[in-house]
Order: sequence, then structure tokens, then C-alpha cells
Amino acid sequence: MPWKFDTLIVGAGFSGLVMAERLTNELGKTCLVVEKRDHIGGNAHDEYSEAGVLIHPYGPHYFRTNSDKIKDYLSRFTEWHEVKYQVSSFTEGRYWSFPVNLKTFEQLIDRDATEEEFIAWLEENKVDIPEPKNSEEVIISQTGWDLYKKFFEGYTLKQWKRHPKDLDASVCGRIPIRTNRDDRYLREEFQALPKHGYRVLFRNLVKACGDKLKILLNTDYREVMNEVEYDHMVFTGSIDEFYDYKHGRLPYRSLKFQFEDYMPDTLKEREAVSGKPGFWQPTLQVNYPNDYDFTRTVELKHATGQATENSTVVREFPDDYAPGKEPYYPIPAEDSAAIYKQYEELAKQEKNVTFCGRLATYRYYNMDQCVGMALKRFEDLAARQNATAGI
Amino acid sequence: MPWKFDTLIVGAGFSGLVMAERLTNELGKTCLVVEKRDHIGGNAHDEYSEAGVLIHPYGPHYFRTNSDKIKDYLSRFTEWHEVKYQVSSFTEGRYWSFPVNLKTFEQLIDRDATEEEFIAWLEENKVDIPEPKNSEEVIISQTGWDLYKKFFEGYTLKQWKRHPKDLDASVCGRIPIRTNRDDRYLREEFQALPKHGYRVLFRNLVKACGDKLKILLNTDYREVMNEVEYDHMVFTGSIDEFYDYKHGRLPYRSLKFQFEDYMPDTLKEREAVSGKPGFWQPTLQVNYPNDYDFTRTVELKHATGQATENSTVVREFPDDYAPGKEPYYPIPAEDSAAIYKQYEELAKQEKNVTFCGRLATYRYYNMDQCVGMALKRFEDLAARQNATAGI
Repeated sequence: MPWKFDTLIVGAGFSGLVMAERLTNELGKTCLVVEKRDHIGGNAHDEYSEAGVLIHPYGPHYFRTNSDKIKDYLSRFTEWHEVKYQVSSFTEGRYWSFPVNLKTFEQLIDRDATEEEFIAWLEENKVDIPEPKNSEEVIISQTGWDLYKKFFEGYTLKQWKRHPKDLDASVCGRIPIRTNRDDRYLREEFQALPKHGYRVLFRNLVKACGDKLKILLNTDYREVMNEVEYDHMVFTGSIDEFYDYKHGRLPYRSLKFQFEDYMPDTLKEREAVSGKPGFWQPTLQVNYPNDYDFTRTVELKHATGQATENSTVVREFPDDYAPGKEPYYPIPAEDSAAIYKQYEELAKQEKNVTFCGRLATYRYYNMDQCVGMALKRFEDLAARQNATAGI
Repeated sequence: MPWKFDTLIVGAGFSGLVMAERLTNELGKTCLVVEKRDHIGGNAHDEYSEAGVLIHPYGPHYFRTNSDKIKDYLSRFTEWHEVKYQVSSFTEGRYWSFPVNLKTFEQLIDRDATEEEFIAWLEENKVDIPEPKNSEEVIISQTGWDLYKKFFEGYTLKQWKRHPKDLDASVCGRIPIRTNRDDRYLREEFQALPKHGYRVLFRNLVKACGDKLKILLNTDYREVMNEVEYDHMVFTGSIDEFYDYKHGRLPYRSLKFQFEDYMPDTLKEREAVSGKPGFWQPTLQVNYPNDYDFTRTVELKHATGQATENSTVVREFPDDYAPGKEPYYPIPAEDSAAIYKQYEELAKQEKNVTFCGRLATYRYYNMDQCVGMALKRFEDLAARQNATAGI
């Protein structure tokens, strides 16, 4: 007799573990989560560098949300450390206030300015496009060509290996443009990191499931799907892989990370640049839109506030995706959406598979959106079960 | 068809993971490791406290060995940070140099002394017992009653809830008694912690296994042993549990831990006690043989040398073992050995189960000894396989 579970969940990231928690606790389902890697948490997994500094080894994960529902749900598994995520952009030999705001304008004109002046300048410079259809249009329609060229075009090309013209408006549209001095990187109301790290959040999610949840690490789901029995599958992996690429490969961008540990001596020398003791760079994140092969450097200690004399900087290099590499980003563009649509049609016909998460639905989603999708998919499943049960 | 593995390994601690590495890499076996907890590494797992300080949440794990073979083997999975594990004993209102050495003697007589004086004092005080048969005899035969009462009797009673008279000589015999100023806690030649923590060592062990190893967390082996097929089982859990306690329950000691995070302000105030900035207590470990309910406090930062302004102290309370609690220590004594012997007889008759590790062989073993046992058990298995194959 094969081993029997109510639900087989593929992937132990936010989507998979939230589904597991809901299914075990709300519907009493037994779940097996299968994960390729040797740890849970997906790309949000955090860890300590060799210098003992908390880092995000799969790229920065800045949690934020406007949804009370999502915040309240996650607050059952973690306390929070509220953060102002601060970013600057390094180009033409200097650090610019970013995202674009009144301080950026003052740097541009090299003197103090008022919000009215900046608004007038933008009015004069911006390109009139009532309905921006791509990432170039969404920025030039707000800032004009100069700021677009300085901060967006090169960065986007490097990050996506596509011209902003060939990317959905939503990509560059994520970045706010403000005429006041508000330089917060993100728009959302609630911006915070899990107080004791994502690791602890995920462990608490797992603990909440009790013994109805089993977690199988180091295992490809294809190795297990024919070895255990299950009524339903929740799939959070890449949807094109699920369908053996029958409609072609969806494009992704991959990343490479370089970790740099800095000790007090070096940090002392860097104070002139970072502006405060114990840090290597002036802000949590520095973008390099026009120089170097890397897109950004992230010094997470700015956000965690960890009390340590050392600091670790993660340098991020965009990389072409190829089988065997990590598919970090679905590419939001018309051509890839057309391929995805074909897979989505197949997915709709599945009675016993729920597709959930960034890779399974090919969306450039933030963490809160992934959690929101998982909660929604769970509700759909629960409703279906109630309907079947005739309730 | 049930899922099929060559070997089912119960427990993901040192014993289980070393067996997994050997079996996958040397014999090409497929292995499923089943682990009750939601992490690998067993009690040697390390983690960061809420203050960002590396701690050993299941009690201190001071790695040491005299075996080049064991050191060389583990060095394939970790670099090392050599450490002098330093302990003191707090009694009669002061910190004493411990284990007993010339400095302890000087504190006792309240003046400088020579090694010859201390040897003469010991000669005069020690009780003549040619073959010490228990933990009381092993100490009084070396130090006499005074030092035994100060440092050993109360500590042992608290730790084991047994009188030293009722514990094997090996228990207190672990602690060296020296007449020179050598105050190292341990005798072994090589004393070091994994440079980047035990977590990283265990992850590297897992990575070395490649895709022949699957790890099932959050799962009792009894839930899986009838669900998958396997040719051989490596059992690293409690042997009395394996045999459903048919010869009675083996006694264990359990522990409770209290974690205390200290911030720079408090540590500043404690400098008078700790003797150096950034620390709460003067040594890595402080024993409390005669006061309080806890046996010891461990401030791991002394050993890791982590660059952090905070510090975390783990206070250790011995606890009666009961089902549902962690069986930290097998109890080395005649009565428990008699029970174990009955289980050992059963174990000897098993053709397809290898018992390995501290709990499965009911031994108060150090980590290196567990690794050594796993390597030996693997060699036995490999020899058996070769014999069967007629090589």
C-alpha cells in the first residue's frame, strides 16, 4: 500500500507552507510538502553570513503589505520589526536619493528647491502619454527622459535583459515617483521584517501544522508523486515544468549573488561613504543603473538593525536563466504572457491540482501577494469541499 | 507500489547523517532519513538567539577528539575554529578555577603555591582506592573529600538525581584533575567548533549525499516504516522505544533551558564580574554545584568569538525524564546497564537493523565518539555487503 496523504504540496516557500497551515488546521487534511532544496522557506529563507550577519541569501525580501488580513494572518507566526527600506542609486559618480523625490531633484539642479518647482519641472519634462503601455512609457510619462535615462533604462536592461519598452508597465511602475521629500522605497502602509527572521516565521508555520504535516526535503516532486497517494496536489513550482514544456519554455531571469563580509577595520574606513559607523554603504540598497555588471548591493543590517560590529553586503548579478539555474523572476511581458496563457488553459482543466504562487501562476508577485493568493486558493478549496459535502 | 529505498535512517543527528553520507557515497545506496523534529542536526543543531547570538539550544556541544580519522572525516564538511573551552565553578560566593588545578588549590589556601605543594596536599587528602568503582570513588581517590564536596557531589546529584556512588566511575572520571596550571576543561588534543556552526556542517553533509538522500522532517519513524519499503534500517533513536519498552523503560535525564539575552547596557554593568567587555560571565561555562536549581550557565560567545555587542546565556536545569520530553542523557549506572543489556540482546538478533548513536546504544557518548561509531557501523555494513556479494 502506498503512503497516503490528503494533499501533496510541491514547494516549501510562502505559498506551500501557508497552504499547508490552512489545510491542516482548517480542514484537518494530512499534507506532505515536497521541497527540492535542503531547507524550507523558499527564496525568503534567511541565514547568517560567515561574519554572523543576517542576510537574505536569495536576494532581499522586503516584506510590505496594505492588507490587514494578510498582516494579521502572518502575525500569528511572527512578531515584526518595522523598517523604512531605504534605497539610493549610484550613477555619475554619486549616490542619488531614490526613488525619485524632491531630494533627487535638488541633487539634479544642485540647490534647494520647493515641491512646486519640482512639479513644474516634471510638467515641462514629462512626455504626455495618457495610457502608458510599457515600462518606458510609464516612467517617461511621469519624469521625462532625463531621469528615465539616469535611473531606469540601464537598470532595467541589466536586470531583465530586455528594453523597458518590451516590459509591462507594471515592472517600472512598481517604483513610486514623488514630488515631496518622502524617499521610502515602497508604497505600502505596513513595511516590516519578521522580528526574528523569516526562518522563525516558517518554523512557526510548520509547528502550527502539528503532526498532520510531513516535510520531505532534498526531493524533486517527480520522484515522489508516483510513490505516495494523494487526493489533491498544490503545485507551487514552475508551471511550464509541470506540463513538460509542451507549449515551450517560459522565460525567467536568474540571479547570481556575491557575499562580502566586512570587519570593523574596513567598515571604519568606509564611514566616509556610509555616513555611519558599522556600515559599508549609505543605504540598505544601492542601485547601479549605469555602471558595473551587478544591479544592486544590499546591506541588510540597515534594515534588521542587528547589533553586530560586522556587516555583510550581497552583490546581485542578473543572469540568463537556463535549466538547472533558479528561475527567480517570471518576466512580465506580452510574449511571455501569451505562452503562460496556454499553460493557464491547461491548468484550468485540472480538477485535482491547485496552482499557487509566483512560479505556478507566472506572476511577478511580492510576498504578501503570494500569501494572499494562497489564502484565496485555500478558501476556494474549502468552498469546493463544502459544496461536495453538500453543506 | 510503495516507495522504495535501500536504507531507512531514523534520526537526522550526527549518527544518522554520517551514516547517510557513507551509504550514499561509498555504496551508492538510496537513503530516506526520517526525523521527528523540523530540522536536521539533532541536539547539535545551532541557531541564533533573538539577540542575534549563536547558541546551542539543546545544551553546549564542545567538539573535541583525539582521533585524526574522525577529525579528517568531518573536515570534509567544515572548517574549524579552535577553542579553549574554559569553565569555572561558582560556590561559596566565588568563581573557582575549574576543573581542579593548581590555581584552584591557590584559591583554596588563599596564596600562591607550587605544583609540589599541591601534589603533597593531594597525597595527604586523597582516599586510597586502587580501583575506583563509582563516581564518588573516582574523585575522592584523586582529590579527597573537600574538593569532592565542593565541586562534584552537589553538581552530580543535581545533574543526575543520583548520588555519585550510584553512577559509573566514567561520569565524574570525564573531568580531569591536574596539578599544574592547565585549566582546560577537556583532555582531547583537538578542540574546536565548526567555523560556521554545526548547521553549516550538517548542510554540507546533506549536500555531499546528492539526490540519493531524501529527508523527511516532522515525522515519527513509526508513521513511515510501513509506508515505504527498505532493505535495511539504521536506527538512532531510543532502543527501548524501538522495542516498545518490553524490558521496561531505560532511565534518561532530561533538561530544560532558559535563554537570556543581554544587551550592551547590561553587559557594561557585568564587566566587573565577567572581566571583559561584552560578556556576562567570566568563562564559557559556569558550574553551580551547590546553589540554585540550574547546574550551569553557558555563554557560547566565549567560544565562538562572534563579533556582536550582545550576548546570550543559556541556563540549564536538569529535569526528570518522562515520555514526551527529550531523553538527553542515558544514565551510566549498573541498574540501567542491566536493562540495556536485555535490549542489546534483542538488537544482536536483528539482521536488518543497525543500531547506532547515543540513544540506540544507550551510551553517554561525545560527538566524536558518535561519529566514530557511525563510521565503524558503516564499515561493518560495507564488509557484510561485500561478503554477501562474494567479493
